[in-house]
Parts: sequence; C-alpha cells; structure tokens
Amino acid sequence: MKTIEKLAALRQIMWENKIDAYIIPMTDPHMSEYVATHWHAIKWFSGFSGSTANVVVTQNFAGLWTDSRYFIQAETQLKESGIELVKLKVPHTAEYIDWLNKTLNVDSVVGFDGKVFSVGIAQAMKIVFERKNIKLNADFNFISDLWTDRPEIPTNEVFNHDIKYAGQRRTEKIATVREKMKERNIDYHLLSSLDDIAWLFNLRGSDISYNPLFISYALISQNEAILFVDNKKLPAELKTNLENDKIAIKPYDEIYSALSNMKDSEVNLAQLSKTNYSLYKSIPNTCSIIDEVNITTILKSLKNETEIDNIRETMVKDGVAMVKFLYWLEQTVGKEKITEISAGEKLLSFRKEQNNFFGESFGVISAYKAHGAMPHYSATEESNVELKSEGLYLVDSGGQYFGGTTDITRTVTLGKLTDEEIRDFTLALKGTISLAMAVFPQGTKGVQLDVIARKALWDNKMNYGHGTGHGVGFFLNVHEGPQSISSRDSGNTETVLQPGMLTSDEPAFYRAGKHGIRIENLILVVEDEENEFGKFLKFETVTLCPIDTEPVDVNLLTKEERYWLNNYHNEVYRELSPYLDDLHKNWLKEKTSAI
Amino acid sequence: MKTIEKLAALRQIMWENKIDAYIIPMTDPHMSEYVATHWHAIKWFSGFSGSTANVVVTQNFAGLWTDSRYFIQAETQLKESGIELVKLKVPHTAEYIDWLNKTLNVDSVVGFDGKVFSVGIAQAMKIVFERKNIKLNADFNFISDLWTDRPEIPTNEVFNHDIKYAGQRRTEKIATVREKMKERNIDYHLLSSLDDIAWLFNLRGSDISYNPLFISYALISQNEAILFVDNKKLPAELKTNLENDKIAIKPYDEIYSALSNMKDSEVNLAQLSKTNYSLYKSIPNTCSIIDEVNITTILKSLKNETEIDNIRETMVKDGVAMVKFLYWLEQTVGKEKITEISAGEKLLSFRKEQNNFFGESFGVISAYKAHGAMPHYSATEESNVELKSEGLYLVDSGGQYFGGTTDITRTVTLGKLTDEEIRDFTLALKGTISLAMAVFPQGTKGVQLDVIARKALWDNKMNYGHGTGHGVGFFLNVHEGPQSISSRDSGNTETVLQPGMLTSDEPAFYRAGKHGIRIENLILVVEDEENEFGKFLKFETVTLCPIDTEPVDVNLLTKEERYWLNNYHNEVYRELSPYLDDLHKNWLKEKTSAI
Repeated sequence: MKTIEKLAALRQIMWENKIDAYIIPMTDPHMSEYVATHWHAIKWFSGFSGSTANVVVTQNFAGLWTDSRYFIQAETQLKESGIELVKLKVPHTAEYIDWLNKTLNVDSVVGFDGKVFSVGIAQAMKIVFERKNIKLNADFNFISDLWTDRPEIPTNEVFNHDIKYAGQRRTEKIATVREKMKERNIDYHLLSSLDDIAWLFNLRGSDISYNPLFISYALISQNEAILFVDNKKLPAELKTNLENDKIAIKPYDEIYSALSNMKDSEVNLAQLSKTNYSLYKSIPNTCSIIDEVNITTILKSLKNETEIDNIRETMVKDGVAMVKFLYWLEQTVGKEKITEISAGEKLLSFRKEQNNFFGESFGVISAYKAHGAMPHYSATEESNVELKSEGLYLVDSGGQYFGGTTDITRTVTLGKLTDEEIRDFTLALKGTISLAMAVFPQGTKGVQLDVIARKALWDNKMNYGHGTGHGVGFFLNVHEGPQSISSRDSGNTETVLQPGMLTSDEPAFYRAGKHGIRIENLILVVEDEENEFGKFLKFETVTLCPIDTEPVDVNLLTKEERYWLNNYHNEVYRELSPYLDDLHKNWLKEKTSAI
Repeated sequence: MKTIEKLAALRQIMWENKIDAYIIPMTDPHMSEYVATHWHAIKWFSGFSGSTANVVVTQNFAGLWTDSRYFIQAETQLKESGIELVKLKVPHTAEYIDWLNKTLNVDSVVGFDGKVFSVGIAQAMKIVFERKNIKLNADFNFISDLWTDRPEIPTNEVFNHDIKYAGQRRTEKIATVREKMKERNIDYHLLSSLDDIAWLFNLRGSDISYNPLFISYALISQNEAILFVDNKKLPAELKTNLENDKIAIKPYDEIYSALSNMKDSEVNLAQLSKTNYSLYKSIPNTCSIIDEVNITTILKSLKNETEIDNIRETMVKDGVAMVKFLYWLEQTVGKEKITEISAGEKLLSFRKEQNNFFGESFGVISAYKAHGAMPHYSATEESNVELKSEGLYLVDSGGQYFGGTTDITRTVTLGKLTDEEIRDFTLALKGTISLAMAVFPQGTKGVQLDVIARKALWDNKMNYGHGTGHGVGFFLNVHEGPQSISSRDSGNTETVLQPGMLTSDEPAFYRAGKHGIRIENLILVVEDEENEFGKFLKFETVTLCPIDTEPVDVNLLTKEERYWLNNYHNEVYRELSPYLDDLHKNWLKEKTSAI
C-alpha cells in the first residue's frame, strides 16, 4: 500500500469514527529513547525514517512536523505521499498543538492512541483546547488496524543481572522502594520506563539495540510486586527465582486492567511526563496520582558501592582495550590501510577480548579530520575515508559490560600538528579538566556547572553546540537521566547532582571542514567537605585512558590544570599497567609521562 | 471584627453559595511584586503581615500556607484566630492545591476571586482537580463583601516621563508593539503588569512604595490603544496629550467588558503566568490566546540608547552621592555618633542633593558587623546599633532618578581588619569581578552564568544563599524581569541575555554572627565579537563608586582580576572627579589608586 492509499484509508476510518484530526507520534508506550520496530508507525505510514517527528492528519491536510536536521530528508521521503513537511521552529516541541487549535472548529475531536502519548502532551492539549471545547479521544489505534504486516513486540530472552554486579538483591531494592512509598503514604508505584524496571528487578534483555532492556511494566505495592511481561521471554529457572522473590508475573498488557481495578482513595505514584496517557486514564478517578520524579529513577541514578567497585573494574577493562587500540593505531597508521570503519571494528575487537563484555553501548563515532567536526558522525560506506599519518582522529565509543556501561572519547594526533590544532585541542581539554576539578555545594544542578566546561572556549570566543555531560547507566542506557550537565535545565528542575551519580564530561571544539576535538571521561559525583556553609561535592574521574599530550600547549594550562593532568596520567598508568604486556606498558609509560 | 468572627461569616457565605473551599491569596490583579493596601486581604482577614501566604478555608479547617521565614511570626499572629499555620515544604509553591485535592470530596467546588489569581495557578488546579471532578468558581469575592473598611485603590496622580529620558515617544513604542503583533498575526495585546504599562506609555505614578507605578490595564490593537485607568488620576494636560497621541482613556474596570466584546477568531497575546484569571475568562472562547513572553516586557528590558546615556549620567549622580557618603562616613565614624539608621538617612540626604532624584528604589540596608550577615537586614529602632572605628559596614541602597534606577552595595572597613575578613572580602570580590569580565555566546541564559560569580567561593567551600543578579528597570522597578543571573532558571526558560539588558552583579559572603560582605554593581549586556562560532556578548559595569581596596588580598586575585579592578578605579575617578570639590577629589584619588 502506498502512503497516499494509507492516508485515504485512515481518513475513511476517521470519518466513520467522527475523528476530526488524528495524531501519530514516534514514541513507544515506555517513552523510550530508542524504540523497537513494532512502534515505528511513522516510518511505516509515511516512509520518513528520521528519529523524531509527529504526523497529524485531518480530512484536508496531512503534515509531518520535524526539526531542521531532517528537513532535506523529509522532503525527499515524503514526495508524492500526500503528507507535507511542517518545519518545527523549536526542536522537540509539540508545535502541532497550536496548529490544531487554530485549524479545528469549536467542538472538534482529536484522536490518538493513548498508549504512545505521554500524559504531559495530553494535558498540554487539554489546556490549549479547553477554550474551543475540542475533545480528546485517546482510544483509537487506527494505525494498528491498517498495519497488517506490523513487526511483533520483541520476545527476546530476559536474563538475570548477578548480585555481584548489582550489589543489591531485587528484594532489597523493592524493600527500599516500599519504604519510600510508606514515608509518602503511597499505595502503588507504577513503573513503565524500561531501564527503571531492569534496574529494580536486576534483570536485563536485548529487545532494543545498544540498550540491554526488555519490554515490560511493573507495579509495586506493600504486598505485591508485579512484573507485566510476555511469559515466553522468561526462562523457567528465572521464573522460579522471581517467584521465590515474591514477584508475580502477569501478561504485558494486563497492566491496564490491574490499574483499573485499584480501590477508591488509593494513591499512586507515577512520573507523568514519562507515563503514557492510557496508563494514566486506566487509574480510577477516585484514586489520587502523585506526579513526582520516579523513586526508582533516583535510586538507580545513585550508584551503590558494589556498582561503583564494578565501574572501577570495568574502567580498567575498557581502558586496557582503549590502550591496545591506540597503540595499534599509532603503530599501524601509514603502514597498513586503516579506514574509519575498520578502526571502529578493530576497537570493538579489543573490547571483545575483555571479560564480561556484552556489546557496544552505542554506535561508534570513528571520525578522521573534517569528519570529526560533525559531533554525531557515523561512517558509512560512502563517507568512509582512510586514516593517514597526519591530522587529528576522534573516536567516541563505549561498551556494555555486566559490570557497567562505558562512554569515552579520545582525539589523537596521527602526525604533525598545526598551531591552530594545538590551541583548539588545549582549550577544549581545559574544559574537560576544569569540570573534573569542580567543587560545588549540595543542591547544585547540572545546568549551573555547564559553563565551567566552556569558559576557556568562551573567553576566546569559541564554543561547542551540544551539552557537556549526560547521565550514564550501569549496564543500562548510555544516556540515563535524571541528571545532566547542559545549558538546558534537564526538564526536571529538581534534578540536583548527588553523590553516586555518574555523568560524562565531554567539552569539545569543532572547526567545520578541518577537525573536531572532544575529550570525554566519565565522572562520578563524590562527597567533599561539609562545613557551616553547606555540604560540598566534587567529581572523581573514573575513565582510565591516556589523553594525547602532543597537541597540548602547556602555556595555556593553569598550574592546577597541569597538575591535574599529570596526576591523572599517573593514575592511568598505575591502574592499567598490571594488565598490559611490556610492549604496551612501555608505550603507556611514555604516553602518561608528566608534561 | 475578630478573625474568628470573620471566619464564621465567611463560612456562612460559603455555605449559602455552595462553595466547599475558599482561597485567599496575597496578590493583586496585576501580579505585582509590591501590592497596594487595597489588596492586603490576608492581613485584614488573618492578622498575618508577612509578604507571602495563601489562606484556604473549608467548613472544617482554615489554614495559612507560608514559608520558613515566617513560621514564628505566623504562629504568633494567628494565635486564637481559628486559622492554623501550614508550613510550606518548598517556598513559593501552591502546595495547598494538593491538600485540597486530598481533602475535598468528588464534585466539590473551590471558590476564589479570579482577579487576584494568575491563570497559571488556576490551570494547575484544573489539571489536578480534573480526576475528582472538583470545579473552580472564580466569580466570588467574599472578602470584599465582609471587608467594610477596605482601603481604596490608590488614586495618586499620574505624570509624564519625558522623552529626553525615555528616548522613544509612546507613539513610537506602540508602533513597534503593533509591528511585532502584525508579524505574529496578533489582533490584541493585553497588558496588565504595571511596569510594562508605565514603560509603554511613558507614564509614571506613585501608587506603590519605591515603584513609580500606577494602577491600570492596557489593550493595544492595530487601531486602538486603550489605557484603563481611573480618570481622576490624570491631570487635564496629560489627558490632552494622551488624546493627541490617539490613546483612549477608559475606566479601570472596563478592561473586562472590553475583552468580553472581542470578536470571533481574534487572537490575543498575553503572558498567562502574569495575567489574572478573570481577564483570561473574559476573553470569548472563540478567540485564540497566544501565551508568550509579553512583547512589551522584552522591549522594556532592552534599554535604548537614550536610556543607556541617561543611565550613565545617573550613575555619575549616584556615584557622587555615594562618594560623599563614604567620605563623610570615614571622616565622622568614631568622632560623632552614627547609627545604622542615621547612616542610611545621611546617604538619602546626599542622594536628595542630586538633580532628578525622585526617591529611594527600595528600603536601604544599612548593616554593621554581624547585621551585615543578614542579606535582607532592615534596621529597626530595636536592632539599630552604633557604627564604631572597627569591622565591616555593608550598605545596599538605590535611587529612583528620572534618568534611571540605581542599586549599589558597598562593604567598607571602618577600622582594623582580621585576616578572615580580608580573605572573605577578596573571595567575594573575585566573584563580582569574574562576572563583570565574563564573555558568553548569544543565547546564554542567566542561570548558566551564576556559577562564574561563585567559583572562587565554591573552590574554598564557601557560598552565598541568594541569586547573583536581578534585572533592573529604568526609573521603574529595581527588580525587573525577565532576565536574572541566578541558580534558578528565571521561570521563563526562553530568557536569554541580550544587549541592552541591565542586571545587578552582587556576589556576597556572609559569616553568621561576624560580618557580611557584598559588592554590587549594575552591569549592562553589550556586544563583543561575532565569528564563525557565534555572536559573543559581554558586560559593561555602569555603577561608578570606589570599591574598598583595604580588605583586598592582592595575592588572591588573578592578574586579569587585578587589572580589571585598577582599570575600573581609573574610570570611577575619571567620571566622578569633575563633579567633586578638591576635598572629595583628593580622597577619591587615593581610594582609586592602583593596587
């Protein structure tokens, strides 16, 4: 069926059901960052394959709202589809709501599938539509009706995440959640975000690329802990273990009836911005809903001691793989043919040699010279170039290990450097170091610290166009909330940095057409001193891998920055050298020598 | 009538009108920072005289929600009133909404006077109450019915703000607003914030202490500009001038019927968080409302060239008054009796000597030694102490001049200093200087820059508990949005710093029981350089007054900070000395000599 036919069919069903406008979003019922193909409705319907869009259909118009990254792609992919590109003014906003409000008549009905809409979006529509008495009808899943060859919801096997990694039994974690619920008089805690569920139950899966997650819901009360998941995903032994831990298993879709059956005046906790509207609507009106940051999300973000010990061990493994890769690169470049793609594959092969390696935590960014200036570059067969003995090479990669998730960027020189490259590199590096050295009072939010990483660049009228740091999961998503270090407040204004939170520290500098520089470590929030002016926190850099000192202009570093760098390199050598043969050890000794 | 009797009377009326809960807020219809006595309903009803509270009354309970600053005061003032203190967990939040939602039965009715409620609060209630079908009724003003000796709405005279100060005629300003409206297809622009109205019409008044404002509304369309204001506030000549400028005058309360009479499909612009709910409800449902930052608020925040020239002149006047005060203080302390209160009065007398001085821009903070450690200290007859030839004295004050509003804090030594005082002073001063020297790309928000002012303190595990900078008006409010430099995003996440914006730069340090240090200048955002990485901005310090260098430890300053300070002092001397006699000139020469 062509898009234009699908559109006609959808309009027919809309007409029969008295729906004046129908919205198709690009989300799944769990508000995930990466979405399984089962929920790629926009791609199926419109042919558009970008990562963010909303389609809105009325009898007279069909539009696809997306942001500037996708304007060219959308125009090509939507050609002759009957769907027009609508250019978003502000990325990641629901600008179609105002369009609907202006376009629709009084008393119109807007339809959508509530399972793939966040409560936040639905409430925003209600507020805007109230004046024109435009009603929402969230019970229509017209796309499913039309989409006959729709991929199944993934049914990959779920597996246990061992206590030696997790540090806390699932029963202990659930007990902590229950305590927090009691403190706040909460009867039920609803979980629909997949990484929160995986963390709470010490389970992992492989339903989604790079993220070791499995499709499910969960509901916790004082007496029950229910995991709503397709039965066939659970091996028999795991099912027995879960039963022994007093965790009930129910079919995936039964979450909706479980919510509907809640008793009067019970109080449910859910973070509505991350909860789908159908879940919200299933809860009886006589129950209260507390909309607060998910208890589990916060607990998960505060890495426990075992997790931190594992992270340290994992950083040694990942550091060893990186050192072997960087050594190989230095020895081989100019002698054998290396391309961006083959370098990325080689790095993966070194990670695969490490114990407990599960897979990449995201698609490697292996970018030579001018390609490095594109922050999200992904080498394709068409773009792939050969690495030569000159210029800067940037590699941003990470691994999923049972003992943690890594994310590291190094920019290394493959030959002679220009003065401009040296200055750019040093100013970007000053950012990485300044943030690593920061001291800040409890209560500080990431948005406040962002400038520390940018100041050296700003002072020289330079900048980079992305955030400085994102939260990182523990054998979970490489992008994990709630905290971040970014010029944008991370949505939730209550997200302050707390001891145990792990984030990236990745200031950068990009000179279009020439080179890109990014030096990224993971940093852990730890306690500093407490005094009459408050409790102070600081960062500990946990990533272990030499930073190329060849492109460093020592005169541009402060005394403290230089001290930090030499000290860091001492630690890198001390931690990694026991796991290296003499060849690599000697190389590392040289690479970590004081400047 | 005692509170307990008022409470009984209110409950009787509530019962007759089938209102299950009634809310009394502490706002006026203009969402003002300072509120005229006409709207001091909570003080009249409950006896509580703090600056922030909400009272909620049901048949079984009456509570006053306020924050920790007022717990002791509220408990005293509410004794035997029948109203209980409810302690806010988070200041400045509407926690009573959740309380109402938990307490009220399904289908209850919550009543209030929509004129003193922001649309934001009403919408927040709607969202929370929807599930229990709790209805809002915004048409009750029960307090007015009971409050027989209620003060009138102020009727002080309105006066013209001359073009030589304002820089733009009101007709020009209105034309600019109309252009912006056209660009966005907006038919009406509703204004209810008093400082925006005063700015747009080049009018001022004296209805509210320290703020030269007058009670009014305004409505702008392409054909009409209507000022809704009590006729008797306007002198005949001014009325003629306004008429010549095609500005219609209508009675204050007629704004409501003007809005009700809007035609179908007209589009109105209003910033709903600053608009009262009755205004919002008056607009017919068939009209659209665009909720965006007020056009006028943004235009007002970007000081025009004439305003900036006037600010520079005003800073000279204010600086001369400050120099005379600081000289007098140094000469007199220890010889004649000076108290905190008499010092504040003396400073006011020096300001009064200046041309175009209109009054103080806020109540002076004149604080000696330990009193300086209380950021909002206001000397009373009870707390007033004598200034002696020792320790640190902090004075935070400002003036309203026809050519601008000033706000300056200086901390000066009155005698021998301790090492601790010197170190504290220098670290706080580093903050003032660092922010003054900041360079940042266009698009930067104040929340991002805050840390620059704190870094020297944080690095030494020290901090201060208030924001770093607030916007400042032009012969208007000393606290003027939308921009600020603070750890909290200023509410509106779109507020970026733009050339022409004026803010304070007031890092501080307080050592409880010992001393307080704050050095505050006003800084103006100006353009720096534009290159391939963006357009960069910086600050120009406009306040002109020596900073005491006696408590400065030069070793703690960077080379750049020291250079900034000496350079600043050169400028202070150059700008102020032509207006000083030899005695003061010589004194200033010494005070501004390089360190």
